[in-house]
This record gives sequence, C-alpha cells and structure tokens, in this order.
Amino acid sequence: MNSGDTAWVLVSAALVLLMTPGLAFFYGGMVRSRGVLNMLMMSLGSIGVVGVLWVLFGYSAAFGSDVGGVGLLGNPAEFFGLSSLLGEDQLSGSIPTLAFVGFQAMFAILTVALISGAIADRARFGPWLLFAALWAVVVYFPVAHWVFAFDSTDDAGNVTAVGGWIANRIAAIDFAGGTAVHINAGAAALALALVLGKRKSWPKDPGKPHNLPFVVLGAGLLWFGWFGFNAGSALAADTTAAVVLVNTLVATSAAMLGWLLVERIRDGRATTLGAASGIVAGLVAITPACSSVTPLGAIAVGAITGAVCALSVSLKFRFGYDDSLDVVGVHLVGGLMGTLLVGLFASSAAPAGVDGLFYGGGLDQLWRQAVGAVAVLVYSFVLSLVLALLVKAVVGFRVSAEDEAVGIDETEHAEAAYHFGDSGSARRTQVPAGEAERKLEGSRA
Amino acid sequence: MNSGDTAWVLVSAALVLLMTPGLAFFYGGMVRSRGVLNMLMMSLGSIGVVGVLWVLFGYSAAFGSDVGGVGLLGNPAEFFGLSSLLGEDQLSGSIPTLAFVGFQAMFAILTVALISGAIADRARFGPWLLFAALWAVVVYFPVAHWVFAFDSTDDAGNVTAVGGWIANRIAAIDFAGGTAVHINAGAAALALALVLGKRKSWPKDPGKPHNLPFVVLGAGLLWFGWFGFNAGSALAADTTAAVVLVNTLVATSAAMLGWLLVERIRDGRATTLGAASGIVAGLVAITPACSSVTPLGAIAVGAITGAVCALSVSLKFRFGYDDSLDVVGVHLVGGLMGTLLVGLFASSAAPAGVDGLFYGGGLDQLWRQAVGAVAVLVYSFVLSLVLALLVKAVVGFRVSAEDEAVGIDETEHAEAAYHFGDSGSARRTQVPAGEAERKLEGSRA
Amino acid sequence: MNSGDTAWVLVSAALVLLMTPGLAFFYGGMVRSRGVLNMLMMSLGSIGVVGVLWVLFGYSAAFGSDVGGVGLLGNPAEFFGLSSLLGEDQLSGSIPTLAFVGFQAMFAILTVALISGAIADRARFGPWLLFAALWAVVVYFPVAHWVFAFDSTDDAGNVTAVGGWIANRIAAIDFAGGTAVHINAGAAALALALVLGKRKSWPKDPGKPHNLPFVVLGAGLLWFGWFGFNAGSALAADTTAAVVLVNTLVATSAAMLGWLLVERIRDGRATTLGAASGIVAGLVAITPACSSVTPLGAIAVGAITGAVCALSVSLKFRFGYDDSLDVVGVHLVGGLMGTLLVGLFASSAAPAGVDGLFYGGGLDQLWRQAVGAVAVLVYSFVLSLVLALLVKAVVGFRVSAEDEAVGIDETEHAEAAYHFGDSGSARRTQVPAGEAERKLEGSRA
Repeated sequence: MNSGDTAWVLVSAALVLLMTPGLAFFYGGMVRSRGVLNMLMMSLGSIGVVGVLWVLFGYSAAFGSDVGGVGLLGNPAEFFGLSSLLGEDQLSGSIPTLAFVGFQAMFAILTVALISGAIADRARFGPWLLFAALWAVVVYFPVAHWVFAFDSTDDAGNVTAVGGWIANRIAAIDFAGGTAVHINAGAAALALALVLGKRKSWPKDPGKPHNLPFVVLGAGLLWFGWFGFNAGSALAADTTAAVVLVNTLVATSAAMLGWLLVERIRDGRATTLGAASGIVAGLVAITPACSSVTPLGAIAVGAITGAVCALSVSLKFRFGYDDSLDVVGVHLVGGLMGTLLVGLFASSAAPAGVDGLFYGGGLDQLWRQAVGAVAVLVYSFVLSLVLALLVKAVVGFRVSAEDEAVGIDETEHAEAAYHFGDSGSARRTQVPAGEAERKLEGSRA
Repeated sequence: MNSGDTAWVLVSAALVLLMTPGLAFFYGGMVRSRGVLNMLMMSLGSIGVVGVLWVLFGYSAAFGSDVGGVGLLGNPAEFFGLSSLLGEDQLSGSIPTLAFVGFQAMFAILTVALISGAIADRARFGPWLLFAALWAVVVYFPVAHWVFAFDSTDDAGNVTAVGGWIANRIAAIDFAGGTAVHINAGAAALALALVLGKRKSWPKDPGKPHNLPFVVLGAGLLWFGWFGFNAGSALAADTTAAVVLVNTLVATSAAMLGWLLVERIRDGRATTLGAASGIVAGLVAITPACSSVTPLGAIAVGAITGAVCALSVSLKFRFGYDDSLDVVGVHLVGGLMGTLLVGLFASSAAPAGVDGLFYGGGLDQLWRQAVGAVAVLVYSFVLSLVLALLVKAVVGFRVSAEDEAVGIDETEHAEAAYHFGDSGSARRTQVPAGEAERKLEGSRA
Repeated sequence: MNSGDTAWVLVSAALVLLMTPGLAFFYGGMVRSRGVLNMLMMSLGSIGVVGVLWVLFGYSAAFGSDVGGVGLLGNPAEFFGLSSLLGEDQLSGSIPTLAFVGFQAMFAILTVALISGAIADRARFGPWLLFAALWAVVVYFPVAHWVFAFDSTDDAGNVTAVGGWIANRIAAIDFAGGTAVHINAGAAALALALVLGKRKSWPKDPGKPHNLPFVVLGAGLLWFGWFGFNAGSALAADTTAAVVLVNTLVATSAAMLGWLLVERIRDGRATTLGAASGIVAGLVAITPACSSVTPLGAIAVGAITGAVCALSVSLKFRFGYDDSLDVVGVHLVGGLMGTLLVGLFASSAAPAGVDGLFYGGGLDQLWRQAVGAVAVLVYSFVLSLVLALLVKAVVGFRVSAEDEAVGIDETEHAEAAYHFGDSGSARRTQVPAGEAERKLEGSRA
C-alpha cells in the first residue's frame, strides 16, 4: 500500500464526484429558466440511483471475475455489497480496493448523468430514474468491464482473472473513458432523443440559455474535476499522472481556441457558450488519449476536436433530432475523435509507449481504436433504444404537451428555480428610496 | 512523517474550508433575495472570527493537555499562537502537527457557520460575530476536546496526555463529528431560534427559496468537501479513509432517495429542495458512522435518516419555532440519527471494528452513543441559550421590525444582491434589435 | 520520486487551475449584467492562450537554463513542446518534472487573467487575446524566471544551472508570487487602465455589482484554490506546506476582518463586497510571506493589508484611472504590502528561517524585498504600457462608444448572460395559479 498513490486516488474520486454537479450547471444554464431544476435533478438523481447500485453489485459486475471468460461481464454476486473488500489486506495495485471502488463509482454516475442533456424539458422524473437504473445495469456495467477491467496476472505473467475484451483482447487504448464514458453516453443520448422526440418548440424556438454564467461555472468545475478523472486514472501519483495532467490542460486550452476560431470565422463572434463547449469537447477528446500522446500531440488532438465539434453541433438541425444540449455533438463526436486520434497521434515518448500512424506505428493501433469505438457505439445505441422504448411502453417517458407548455420544473417538481420578485432590488434601482418605498414594501407582503 | 498521509490531510483541510462557502450558498439560495447577502456574510464572518481564534488559542483549548485531567478542556495557553508547533519535529501521528491544526480549524469554522441557518433575515451582523466568537470559545472548543481529543499514550500504552471524556471515558464512536459538529450546531440553532424569535412573516409567509440552483450548488460543494471532512478524519491515506469515502458516497445517495421518496408519497412531487436537503441529511448522518458501518450499513443509515429528516423539518411548524433553514430538522435530527444508528448498524467488518445491536454487539455501543449525543445536545443547548440571551441583553441581537420589512441586506450591509435591471437582456428578447433600441439604451444611461 | 509529494503537487495544480474560473466569477459578479460574459471570457481566454504557450516554450523560458547567465531569461528552445521531459527519469526535486510544469502553468494563466479586472466593459476580445499572449511572453515568462527559478546545484554545492536574479542574487523571499504574480499583474493592470481610458459612465456611474453572490462564489473558490497556490509551492507534502496552509487561512481571516472594520468605521456598514475583497487582499498579502512568518505574524500581515487595501481602492477616484475592479488597489497594493511586510514580520521560527526587522533581523531582508518588488513593478508597468500601446496602434484595443453603450456582451460575443424572461416564475408569484394561468402560459408559447 502506497499512501501517496492512495491520497491521489481518494482526491481524484472526490474531484470526479464534483463533475456531476458541475455537469448539472453546465447543462442547467443552457436550458430555459423554467426547466433548469429538472436538468439539475436528472444529474442528482443519477448520483442517487447509480451510487447505490454501484455498491450493491455494479462494481462487482464491472470488475468482478469474468463470467465465462470471454470478457463480456464480471460476476455481479462476487463482491455484492462490498463487505468482503473492507480489510486492510484488500489492495488494487498500490491502493486500497475501496479507493478504486469509490473512484470508479464516480465514473458510472457521471456517464449516466451525461445522457440527460439530450432530453431537456420533456422527460418525466420517475421514468428518468428508472431508465438511469436500467441503463447503468444493462449498458454501463458491462461496457466498463469491457474497457476498464484488465486481466490480473501473477508474478509469472499467467492470467489469474480474466478482464474485458476491449482492454485485453483488442488492446484499444482508452485511458480514462473515451469509449466507456463518452461514446457510450453520446450514443445513448442519441437513442433517447429519438425515442422521446422533439420538444414542441424545437427547432423553431430552441430557447436561449437562461444563465450563461452557470454554463461557465459548470465548465470550470468539470475541468477542475477532470484532472481527477484523467490523471486519477493512472491510479498512482506518478509520472504518468503528471503527463496526463499537462495533456488535459493543454488539449482543452487548444480545443477552446479551436471552437472559438470556428465561431469567429463562421459567425463573426466568439461566444461564451462556444468557449464552454470547446472546453468540454477538449476534455472529452483528451480523455482516451491523455496517456498516449505528447503535449504537442495533445494540442493537435484538442484543436482538431474543438473545431470538429463546433461544426458537429449543427448536425441535429440537418437530421432533425432534438439532442437538446448537444450530447451527440460534443460527447459522441468528441469521444470518437479522441479515441481515433490516438491511432494517429500516439507517441512512444508518452507513458503508454505506443506509436500511432503519424509517429511511424502504422495502422495497428488505429484499427484497435476503431473496433473499440464502434463496438461501444453500437452496443450502447441499440440497448439504449430498447431500454428507452421499454420505459416508454411500460410507464411512459415524456411529459404531457400541456405540462411541457407550462414548464417541467413546475409540473414535475412543483418548484420555480428563481424568485427574484420579492427582492425589491430591481425596483430599488429605478425609484428613489424613501418612506413611500417602505410602505410599498409593507403593502406587498 | 508520511508524505502521502500529509498530502491527504492538507487536501482535506482545503476541502473542508470549501464547505463553508458551500454552506453559504446552500443557505443563501433558500432565503429571499433581499436576505441572501446577510446569509452569505454569516458564513464568511464565521471563517474570519473562528479562523483567528483557532490560531490564537482554540486549537490549544481543544487539543492541548487536559486541564485537571477530567477530560473537559485543554489548556488554552499551551500552544498559544502555535509558534511552538512550527518545527519539522512537530508531528501528530504521521503528519506535521500544523496539518492537523489546519484541518481541525475548518471544523470549528464550519460548525459555527451551520448555526446561522436558524436565524435568517433577522440577526444583526455585529452581534452575530460576537455570538460566533463566544460560542466558539465556550461551546465548540470544549466539546471538540470532549469528542476529538484522544489520550496520548507512549509505546508501553501508558497515558501521557489526557484527552476528552467522551472520546476516552465513554468511547462513543463519532468519527468525524456527528456530536461535536452537527448535534452541537443543531442544538445551538434551536436555542438561537428561540431567543431571536420568529420572523414577522413566519409562518404565514415563510418566503420561497429565491435561487434553488444556488441551493444545489451549495449541496454539491458540501458533498465534495465532505469527502475531506469524513475521509480526511482518518488522518491518513489508508484503508479506513477509502472505506469512509465509499460510505460517504453511498449513504448520501440513499438519503437523497429516501427524502425524495417521502416527498413523492406525501406531496406527489420530488423537489429539488428535497434532493439538496436529503444530500445534506445523508452527509450529516454518515459523519459519525462512516468508519464503523459497512457500505450496506451506510445505505441503511442514509435511507433511514433521509426519510426521518424529510419528516422532521415540519416539526418547527408544529412547535412554532422559526428555525428558518431547518438546522434542527437536518443537523440536530440527522446528527442524532447517525450517532445512534452506529449503535445499531456498526459492524466489526468496518474499520472501527465494533459490532452494534444488529450485528450481535448488544446494547453496549448504543448507550455509549446515547450518552455522547445527549451530553453534547444538553451542553450546547443550555450554553447557547445563555450566550444568546447575553448578546441580546448587552448589545441587542435582532434587527428592528422596520429594517426586517425593508430587508436585511439593505439595512445591515447597504447592498442588494442583484442588479439585473441594467442588463437590457430581458428587454432585448422581447423587442426587435435596431436603431430604436440603441437610442433607448442611450436615453436610459 | 516521492508519491506523497507528487500527489500534493498534482492536486495543487488542479486547485490553481480552478482559481481562474473562480477569479472569473469574482470579477464577473462585480460588473453590470451586460458585461459579465466578456469578463468571464477574458479569464477563459487566458487559460486557452497561456496554456498553449506555456507548453510550447513558456516553461522553457521561465525554467530553462539561463541565457547568458545573468538571471534574466531561460532558454525558450531548451524544452520546446516538453517532449524531452516525459520520461520517468525526469524529476524536479522529489516530483516528476511534468507535475512541476503543470503546477507552474496555472500560475502563468492566473496572472494574465488577473489583469483583466482593470479593463471591464471596454476591451475588444481579439485584441485582449493578443495582449494576453504578448504579455505572457514578454513580461510573465521572464519575471517568473527572475523570481521562481532557483539555481541548480550538485551535491558539492556548485551551481550547475543558473536561475533568476531576484531568487538567487537578491534572495528576496517570494514564496508563491507576491512579486511575480500580484505586483506583476497589478502594475500591468494600471498600465492597461491608462491606455484604454475610462469607461464613458465612469466615475459618475460606475455601475453596481450585478451579482454579489457570484463575487462571494469567486472569493470562495479563490480561497480554496489558493491553498494549492501557496502550500503547493512547497513542492512537497511536508511541514512547510502545513505551516503555509495555516498561515493562508489565518492571514485571510484577519484581512477580511480588517477590511470590514474599516468599512464599519468609515461607512457604517460592513459589506459583502468588502468581505470578498478583504479575502482576496489577505490571500495576496500572505502569498509572498506564507513560509516566512509565524501564524501570529500572518494575522498581522493579513489585518494590516486588509485595512490598507480597503483604503487603497479609493485611490483610483483621486487619481482618475478607471481600474474597474480594483486590480491595483488589491493586487498591486496587497502584493507590495505582503512582499515588504516579510522584511518586518519574518521569523526564524517559520520554515524560511529568516528574521525580519521586528524579530531582530535588521533591515537586511527588507531591502531585498524592496528591490524585488520595485524591479518587478517597474519592468511590468513599462513593458505593459508598451505592449498595450502597440496593440492599440496596430489592431485597436477598445470597443466603439456605441458598442460600449449597448453593452460588450452583445457586441463582442452576440450573447446576453441571462434570459429569465421566459421563466414565468416572477409572474407565478404574483397571480394565483390555476387554469387561467395555464392558458396564459399557452398563449405566450
């Protein structure tokens, strides 16, 4: 047990937990003010539902011994309730197993929350929780096993516990979840947007972001937390973690600039929404690639993905699906870009030690990346479609047209996000203060 | 000195500092917009006053050698100003003593800030700072000594420095402050609500939360910081910290679901305010219990407390005390629940190694928990009452009825939280842009 | 390689990254609502531009081998793109070099972002990015070399690589950047305010802060991140870091109280803006001093600087420069105070082991501090003036008078920060709910 590595993974777990509230604000600021609470609640609900499921059997399904030895699923019963993993002798590498369990819990939670951006303003809350639970079990837990569960080996190199097929058989490089998290969530988002259908007002009146500072706050918290997400995935406080941290900084910086440049050229103005979106696109892209590219490679991955995602978010208008907050354009496209660009920009100078096409490594890594990406995309899209249709058929998924017109915060949660009305501050700036004002104040109460 | 343990405690100190601004937003979002600044200021003021007192003599009073050897108070003069503790040879366990001093400072600060939720909209700011200082000295520093100061022993097991009576004589389990922080603050909040009395508008018009996204932001920052609060209390980056982190995640998830379920059944809707409150209730409950229950036990502690607290917050309407933001319903009740449930759900499989009633340990731990809880509750309530009456008598505590009607932000701080009026954005969405608009803009300036 | 030290520096890097979004909110809340997005964007833009430049050659210019051996600039080509620093054998002290690179990157980013507070509401975004890039290269990279690049020595004590002149030749104590960060940014802010000139409405109508809770949020995130900034500068999880953390807490607490006391005496009210500003002033002041004073000394440094800065922010009205958000009054004055007070309050009981004037050390350290402070002030002010005039002459720096009247968010970014108008929540508080309301809602859609 290494206390430095443990400290880093514990901190990283906390950082990744913060990403879900961060995401809630990134998403919540983008919707109308009458739908922001529901947007926040879908993220909070993910923490609640997935947090409990992960402890019960999710960790076991993702990281338990493979059922059947083909790398498709861990044994959900093996570590049920985690009680057998609490002792001081329970280690994962150089850290306590529970530190790894906690760190990975946050990934499962965030991935589910990411999906919710596709269905703003129109999903009933109870069915969302149901979908979140089903999706975690049927899609996330297996895919996490495929991508994140490495074979265990003994000192002689013999496999003592079989892990997931993508990690071990294909050897795709996905350091922190380009496939398992972002392509996975993005494909599910597309399925959900299709099943739930468009908002009544879309695309005629998509609504303006009601609170852009919240979008920036969310992007800032996401970036901060993402250092835990990516560099924490080294599972040690070592050189790999340090390289990953620098790559996570610089790819994201470059992606922001790439997105803003596209906006400046195309629209004449660089927007705040673009900067925040570019940040997230860059973070998504560098997630699978952060251990396998040099900082210069990271700049390339970020800048290219930032520009591509800036162009991709208009696809929904062309194809007519209401992916409300661009989960497809940012997470699916960004995840695909990052995963595939590993095949081009990987450099053996980076910790992963693999050369991609541009560094003389040929096409070997690129096809591995493509197989991993496509497999997760297809599995997630098909199963998400099935689960969403199931929820829709059994309990109904979408709010009524009348409720949608009223606003989902009021109809689903019986709340309004803001009550600035009784502040008096707006009034106070317009009329002179004085006795008359105080009377007015009294009469209104 | 272990650098990994030190890194973890330093980070945890920073995390716990962040909880106080987090709390400020959790509280601030719940009040009317004309009282939000005062709510924020009560938390900031706690940092200022308690931060300085802690360094001067608070740490010494809480963790200095016991005065008289009965476990009631440390010697406030022993480490006055901390100057004697700065050397490299000054260690607390495996970390520099100053890291422990800084970590514990944040606990003192937060506990004082927690109280302020009971007296929204009506406490004068100067008297609040005075009360905060008195309460820290008379209530928090001694109680922290009772609960957190363990006897020091030499290698042979002989006691070299006597600690607090609850920690050592009673051996109640309070890992991170269910008694010293939450019952303590909750009992003080009740006393303060009684001394200051109801707001004029209460209970007829309690006011709606003016900014629910701020409440969620606060809850998110609290949860994030609470990993430092709880898992940092291991004072090492070890297995205990890792188990605590997972318990802190899952109990809170379960508490949120428990609270929302009560709301859904009772009111028909799961609210955002309920989710945020359930999060805090769960965090409170698992605080004393996080090292002594298994993850399954944590789910039980969280779910039960979430539901109980959801029911408890209406007590104030029945008994007629204006505990404005439910410090009693969440922190006192939640702290009692968590402290007592240790007596039921403690499992020797968890790091603390103690079995509660449900795990075959009988009633032994339960009565220890009850003694600790009741002692802190009674001491804090009585002394808080005395101090609040003293402040009221000497300098006055409550704002005038006229000032209360105007709004406390304006009368105490000469500010209004928001000035959206000169944005023009609302207008801009309603009238077409153009030359006429620009003229209007100019004429207004 | 020490994993505990590495964990701490990695976390600290993440904490310092968060300071820039924190600063964005601290600044953004202070401006009118029609300029908040531009304020946020100037900070985000700093991350983008400086993040990329740092990786390309900024780190190398600051920490590469000295060009010419006189301590003025590192060799920008030495570590271009960082590719040569990725191996496991690349260490800086006890941590991977890339961890140090990432940590220092955040300092460069933040320093540039700090400047933007001086030019609210009137700087074109593209020219700001250009200025940010030029200033990072011409001012920050060299000054960071002067102050932060220590000579490397071999085991025998012979200098193997020459560092910066202030750190080594003058031996000024600037633990975390009182000169390199705060005096540097503050002097540049003054130059920029002079070159861009006053806002049309200033000083007649400076505008009220549109969102004071955002100012508090920013101050809270800054304080949280500043523990990484200051204590992370120990580059190890050790006693020095622990002492620094406690000093950073208590100096800031005292500064807040100092600022509020001045307000209370001068204006009759302690304000939220004052508390937030006092926090930042205290953090600035303790930044250079945090390793060289005792906690009692830190209280003195904080309290004095808090009071002095509270008085300094009115200087701009006397001298007529529109330093919109008081970068001069807080960062330049606070940085000078902190740097010079080291010469008075340094105590050999603190980790730096130096006695200042009040601790019997005479004037030796004071003149070293003064030389460092003045050198950075003069260099930064002159070069910033030249660069700002250059940007102004070549591409223009300031928005048109017409655009300034409309509001910079709309004219530079084609956005408005808030759209509360379609919430319906304000209306809902004033008219009774019911069928009529729903019809109204429908008719509006």
